[in-house]
Amino acid sequence: MAKKASKASRSASGKKPQKYVYIFADGKADGDAKRKPLLGGKGANLAEMTRIGLPVPPGFTITTEVCTCYYDNGKKYPAELAKQVEAGLVVLEKSLGKKFGDTKNPLLLSIRSGARDSMPGMMDTILNLGLNDATVEGLAKLSNNEWFAWDCYRRFVHMYGDVVMGVQPQGKDAHEPFDEVMSQLKKERHIERDADLTKSDLKDLVRRYKSLIKKWTGTDFPQNPVEQLWGAVGAVFSSWQNERAIVYRRKYKIPHEWGTAVNVQAMVFGNMGDDSATGVAFTRDPATGENVFYGEYLINAQGEDVVAGVRTPKAMNELRKDAPKAYAELDKIRKRLEKHYRDMQDFEFTVERNKLFMLQTRNGKRTGLAAMRIASEMVDEGLITWKEALKRVPADSLSQVLAPIFERKDRDQAVKDGRQMAKGLPAGPGAACGKIYFNALDAEQHARKGEKVILVRVETSPEDIRGMLAAEGILTSRGGVSSHAALVARQMGKVCVCGCGELKIDYIARQLSTNDVVLKEGDFVSIDGTVGEVFAGRINTAPSEVVQVLVDKSLKPQESKVYKIFERFMNWSDKVRRLQIRTNADQPDQALNALAFGAEGIGLCRTEHMFFEGDRIDAVREMILAETVEARKKAVAKLLPYQREDFKGIFRAMKGFPVTIRTLDPPLHEFLPHEGSLIRELAEKMGVPIDRVQARITALHEANPMLGHRGCRLGVVYPEITEMQARAIFEAAAEIQKSGIKVNPEIMIPLVGFPKELENQLDVVNRVAGEVQSKQKIKLTYKVGTMIEIPRAALIADKIAERAEFFSFGTNDLTQTTLGMSRDDAGSFLPAYQEAEIIKSNPFASVDQDGVGRLMKIAIEGGRSTRKDIKLGICGEHGGDPDSIDFCHKAGLNYVSCSPFRVPIAKLAAAQAALA
Amino acid sequence: MAKKASKASRSASGKKPQKYVYIFADGKADGDAKRKPLLGGKGANLAEMTRIGLPVPPGFTITTEVCTCYYDNGKKYPAELAKQVEAGLVVLEKSLGKKFGDTKNPLLLSIRSGARDSMPGMMDTILNLGLNDATVEGLAKLSNNEWFAWDCYRRFVHMYGDVVMGVQPQGKDAHEPFDEVMSQLKKERHIERDADLTKSDLKDLVRRYKSLIKKWTGTDFPQNPVEQLWGAVGAVFSSWQNERAIVYRRKYKIPHEWGTAVNVQAMVFGNMGDDSATGVAFTRDPATGENVFYGEYLINAQGEDVVAGVRTPKAMNELRKDAPKAYAELDKIRKRLEKHYRDMQDFEFTVERNKLFMLQTRNGKRTGLAAMRIASEMVDEGLITWKEALKRVPADSLSQVLAPIFERKDRDQAVKDGRQMAKGLPAGPGAACGKIYFNALDAEQHARKGEKVILVRVETSPEDIRGMLAAEGILTSRGGVSSHAALVARQMGKVCVCGCGELKIDYIARQLSTNDVVLKEGDFVSIDGTVGEVFAGRINTAPSEVVQVLVDKSLKPQESKVYKIFERFMNWSDKVRRLQIRTNADQPDQALNALAFGAEGIGLCRTEHMFFEGDRIDAVREMILAETVEARKKAVAKLLPYQREDFKGIFRAMKGFPVTIRTLDPPLHEFLPHEGSLIRELAEKMGVPIDRVQARITALHEANPMLGHRGCRLGVVYPEITEMQARAIFEAAAEIQKSGIKVNPEIMIPLVGFPKELENQLDVVNRVAGEVQSKQKIKLTYKVGTMIEIPRAALIADKIAERAEFFSFGTNDLTQTTLGMSRDDAGSFLPAYQEAEIIKSNPFASVDQDGVGRLMKIAIEGGRSTRKDIKLGICGEHGGDPDSIDFCHKAGLNYVSCSPFRVPIAKLAAAQAALA
Repeated sequence: MAKKASKASRSASGKKPQKYVYIFADGKADGDAKRKPLLGGKGANLAEMTRIGLPVPPGFTITTEVCTCYYDNGKKYPAELAKQVEAGLVVLEKSLGKKFGDTKNPLLLSIRSGARDSMPGMMDTILNLGLNDATVEGLAKLSNNEWFAWDCYRRFVHMYGDVVMGVQPQGKDAHEPFDEVMSQLKKERHIERDADLTKSDLKDLVRRYKSLIKKWTGTDFPQNPVEQLWGAVGAVFSSWQNERAIVYRRKYKIPHEWGTAVNVQAMVFGNMGDDSATGVAFTRDPATGENVFYGEYLINAQGEDVVAGVRTPKAMNELRKDAPKAYAELDKIRKRLEKHYRDMQDFEFTVERNKLFMLQTRNGKRTGLAAMRIASEMVDEGLITWKEALKRVPADSLSQVLAPIFERKDRDQAVKDGRQMAKGLPAGPGAACGKIYFNALDAEQHARKGEKVILVRVETSPEDIRGMLAAEGILTSRGGVSSHAALVARQMGKVCVCGCGELKIDYIARQLSTNDVVLKEGDFVSIDGTVGEVFAGRINTAPSEVVQVLVDKSLKPQESKVYKIFERFMNWSDKVRRLQIRTNADQPDQALNALAFGAEGIGLCRTEHMFFEGDRIDAVREMILAETVEARKKAVAKLLPYQREDFKGIFRAMKGFPVTIRTLDPPLHEFLPHEGSLIRELAEKMGVPIDRVQARITALHEANPMLGHRGCRLGVVYPEITEMQARAIFEAAAEIQKSGIKVNPEIMIPLVGFPKELENQLDVVNRVAGEVQSKQKIKLTYKVGTMIEIPRAALIADKIAERAEFFSFGTNDLTQTTLGMSRDDAGSFLPAYQEAEIIKSNPFASVDQDGVGRLMKIAIEGGRSTRKDIKLGICGEHGGDPDSIDFCHKAGLNYVSCSPFRVPIAKLAAAQAALA
Repeated sequence: MAKKASKASRSASGKKPQKYVYIFADGKADGDAKRKPLLGGKGANLAEMTRIGLPVPPGFTITTEVCTCYYDNGKKYPAELAKQVEAGLVVLEKSLGKKFGDTKNPLLLSIRSGARDSMPGMMDTILNLGLNDATVEGLAKLSNNEWFAWDCYRRFVHMYGDVVMGVQPQGKDAHEPFDEVMSQLKKERHIERDADLTKSDLKDLVRRYKSLIKKWTGTDFPQNPVEQLWGAVGAVFSSWQNERAIVYRRKYKIPHEWGTAVNVQAMVFGNMGDDSATGVAFTRDPATGENVFYGEYLINAQGEDVVAGVRTPKAMNELRKDAPKAYAELDKIRKRLEKHYRDMQDFEFTVERNKLFMLQTRNGKRTGLAAMRIASEMVDEGLITWKEALKRVPADSLSQVLAPIFERKDRDQAVKDGRQMAKGLPAGPGAACGKIYFNALDAEQHARKGEKVILVRVETSPEDIRGMLAAEGILTSRGGVSSHAALVARQMGKVCVCGCGELKIDYIARQLSTNDVVLKEGDFVSIDGTVGEVFAGRINTAPSEVVQVLVDKSLKPQESKVYKIFERFMNWSDKVRRLQIRTNADQPDQALNALAFGAEGIGLCRTEHMFFEGDRIDAVREMILAETVEARKKAVAKLLPYQREDFKGIFRAMKGFPVTIRTLDPPLHEFLPHEGSLIRELAEKMGVPIDRVQARITALHEANPMLGHRGCRLGVVYPEITEMQARAIFEAAAEIQKSGIKVNPEIMIPLVGFPKELENQLDVVNRVAGEVQSKQKIKLTYKVGTMIEIPRAALIADKIAERAEFFSFGTNDLTQTTLGMSRDDAGSFLPAYQEAEIIKSNPFASVDQDGVGRLMKIAIEGGRSTRKDIKLGICGEHGGDPDSIDFCHKAGLNYVSCSPFRVPIAKLAAAQAALA
């Protein structure tokens, strides 16, 4: 029927039918590495490896267009597909001299998904396809290994039953049905390892699997290989829309429209005996970046065994002994791949009776640290340029080399106290501490409540992805450094210790134990993913090496290799970026930290944070409770010396870099107590009747404080507050300038929406500046500008710029007002919005470019139309987000401002934006 | 010196110097009525009247440019001014054969302000200028009336001392210093009326006044007339910036930059004896609009006496007997003026020894009712076209003919109960009831607290303007229908009864009394400004005649003259307006009212208002407390029949007019109780533990509910609610349509910010529509659209319009988000903002055109770019505000929607916008 349809379509259009199947075989391939959108990453690289002469089993790729077409047309394939698949099979048969479905010399196939971007473990795979009750006998004869043939068959029936026919666990804690059958058999035979099953056990197993399938689905396991093939292809396409794949794409912003390709490839067997093996390797260490051959393999196993972490595999260098020829060949291929792809590769291989086959290659996922080291060393090796190196490191991944480690003293004490429980594989660098939860759902729920959570699993699977996202760290008792847990954790930048076999994990009792220690659900555990250590209880974390060099000065630069690489990237970034990087800092020590990280000024100094320190809150409260202007002025005057000292500290620290100081912003009720006893205390302290304090608190209550009496609205109604702050700034500036240190204050008026608000506050600031300068006989340089943080300000920016010397986009509030969405309240619907894909990313994390971004552009255009050289920056949380930094670069801002620890990330992101 | 400066400037520029002084005298004038911006209203009309041959005393006008110049240059005059004033004086002297400062035949002057728009009583006036110890004797001889001459002198010294030299009361309750001197003298002489003062008393008074001035100011009263003149001119210019003038301009949106002119005019005297008089008249009745000669005068008095309300004047028709010649001449002039100005005039006149002089004319202020009647009758008289008539009635003033009157039964009962206290002059139509306060400050403060307030004063003065603004109505015991109270109340549309001489008002005891009744501060009083009645206690108010005809049907159209005129204006409006007028109505009776007022559809039907009725709130609460989708669906199902009935009622009432129904909008916590006992009650009713109810209330609490989980965010998270509402709408529509009545539902999704939010809700609505239609075998026509009420929606309107069939601008929320200003919280700073002129008008009353308006334009442009015929409307409070309606017309909306009672106002405003 497919043939007929194909013919019909050809004759109807009169054109050559579209090409849906791309063949690779015998050193030739229809595709190449550039065709990832069409062939998926795996398919494109199989074609590429074939082209450059690597030993790839022949096969063909069904394109991603078929997937799109499949979903667009009610899960139907294009008419031409069947014929092209048939033709592909013929090529495979010819290449190998086997025949699909032949009972004597059967061609067996693997069917694998392969999207444009790698989505490890998210979609389905089927191996050994083509086996049935007849061909299994052919395979047994051909391989002269009946055990092997029946092992393949039972694997195939299991996979096919699970993936294609839907025999899967029902409910969260249910067992995998095939595993249950296997366990039952092992129990009957008193066997522990799969390898100990006899031939007849395997045959029995196949029988039992088939009746399980019949029982669950009401249909028989299909014996026809062609039917098997189409079933498998359909299952792979369907798996594009399974829940875990959707979650993954959401997390990594992979468009659903891309679709997956399907790779149909001749099987090679790592499970043909002890001269066979299968493995996964990296051309360099993906955790540290070190230039060593890194990976693991299993003797006499099929590929899925390694990744699934069922048996703990051996390290790569042991292969040198186990299979010296294959090892030598692999090591050559490793170099060949790096030279060809100019990047670290993650590849799969199989050794079938001492013959090496390459099954896949791709750019390897790596930690931030590894990304930097590999890129840096590849520059030295002449493989890439330093600009390419800059682009190779995801800016956000720098957070990993800045991430905390265990506090050394704490950790040593934990060792002394005998709290060290186990050692596993270091699979995701950094140290983390949190409460134990044993499944993804619990981890997610507790994390939502604000708990720090460590997800503890025997091994993780793609179903656990939400829990992994929510956790601080992941701990597993089984699986190697390329297990699912390790792979995903590295990509997410999560702390991970895996394959920690000493740990006993009991899901039912909800406990994690060694012989000595028992931890229950909710108890604390601390893990170090850089070295693989696991501790009972809490261990405080300490700064990373880079932080120790730059901030703590407890390490010298030359003592830290990590730091040297980090420094190199910072220097490269500085060469190309156009955006300046400032920091948000309210105190001198924060300012110093930020300077150490390379900040080039303060973009946001919140004066109100200073209001809470020590006694000064009393003066603040006195100011708020004042009933006359005189009383208020008296209270405000008490604050002046404090604020002046604060600003002196900051100016001194910043050594002439610009310091943007925002005048008082939060609503006054934030400074008053709201609890009965504290109110009484305050009334007594102030010598004011409690009723009056209570009345004032009531009067200051607001229905929507976010949109209430705050920002410059405070300064307009209480000009004496602005006056005091301006005086503190200018007196501090004068004093520091006299001491020989440059000062460069930029005074920022918050929440401006009307030009006259700014004028009103400007008048106060300029008057005070004049008074201080003439009294102190000094000339100060300063700027006055405004935050653009409500839509009206953006819309009338041309008028505001008549008086404002700079704009700083307060994207936190601008996002809240533009979207009409309170950050504090959005938790009740944002998750549902991300689920339903109403929004792609959290607008409070990354600038909403269509909405907020458009307003920013209106403001930029408006501002520049009246003041050509207006200085433009951003001081919202978005200032440290790489996507937002890219937007700010394109929008033409002068600087971004972010928290001190994100300054390096922002620098790299700014450099990448400039190179884009 | 002025001469020199003038010369210098002339030689320096070589050009003709700028003209600052415009003369009118002897039937010729430099200016005319069109030059109001330059000459002010008074100056321009004095010139115009001179030109058309009316008897105007000669004079000249110093232009408003001098005022602007004066304030721009540190209160200095332009160099050319002095010379031009001198030249003007010479013309006056020649015209009258008198000489300024001459001791025998002195020219005396009046100095009056005159801005472009009339600002009654806001600025200063000085009469009898030029008198001094010598000229007063000349005047006495010349007039042969020593008493008159000294009466003029004492008035002049008083005015000059007050206005120019600043001898004024200090503090709120202080007495006027000159009045105190006068009272003292009267006491000494045992005299009550000014008229009983003897010549020597007047001379004594002048002496005492002069020493008062010396004591207060340390300087002598100036004897030099030229010095007097410049002093007075300066005082008039200065009065442009006095507080009451600034408040007035703010209220009526008169730009401060306009400035005032100064009119210097030869004095004529209404106080030369019983053959002299002075008066104020209107060419028609300014309260009712009736075409009668309306006004009042005082025999033997100066102009200020009439307006100030010191003596209660006589009605105009009595002048026919008192001064038949002057009356006849005036009646001719009245007709001449209307023909010339084509509008009702308000003019001042003086009769000096039987000779008539015109001192001023201007378009008369009038009530809304009068405006309509006058314009309507002028159309009939052929004076103006109907389109001009439409423009003559301020749309907002229609509210006066829609304003409530006393409930007849209540009022009759009050008469029976003897609560009728007094009858005064009907000075501002409508009925009002409120608590008595005796000064402007108290009235303002109590009104702010939400009390309904009646301001009770002996007479009002410009200082009272804020209190008048705050009050529901104004009651005075002194002053006529052209007194300050009456004038201002009419303009503000306030209910006013004035000149109610039977009432005793005691400021000290804070009481209002007649012989029978005593009312204290805070007691209720009820006043009817249409007939002038005053009642003790409360009287309920009832609908106006128009409402009785249209809504209550208790009057037939032909029984109400007011209604007939109203109807005529509505018909004219309908001929020219392009905007459709819809109404905001949630219930069938509201819908019927709105239809009666001419609404052409419902622009906003809030479904949640229906949730509070009767038992249904229980189902709503059950829905909110539900913990599973099933439980929620069960609760929601209970609401379905209620909502269906609601919609049936509305569809039936609206007879096929479009009905825009908004799906659930407010955050769910608004439906839950927040007080302990009510929570317990609810828990019991629902059979749910109180902890769970409390927990749910806590969980639903929001930091900023305005920006929280509401609008379509509810529908996205709880699609079953949208589904129920859609089902209720379509089932109701089907039923009504089957009964033979057309239905035209427009379903509006609130708070949309992302295109996919709308899509999500659209899918639900369309699915339900399909289900209902196929089940009921009926074809329904409906639209689905969205509110544009957050900035993001406006910014991406092009994308939203891909699916939205209409936009309705929710300008309430759009204002709150665009300005970052919560309407509920802005009270703490908005007054200060209006005071400091940071904003000109309340953005919640009138659309903020620069900010919100710009976003609306972006949305309109965006929406039309993807959907050319998208229907556009506005449903915020602004939909009933004439300025906003004008904006909506210009912006190209299809309709505005407002509260039922504002529909006529909106119609007229829409017509005016179309004519503009």
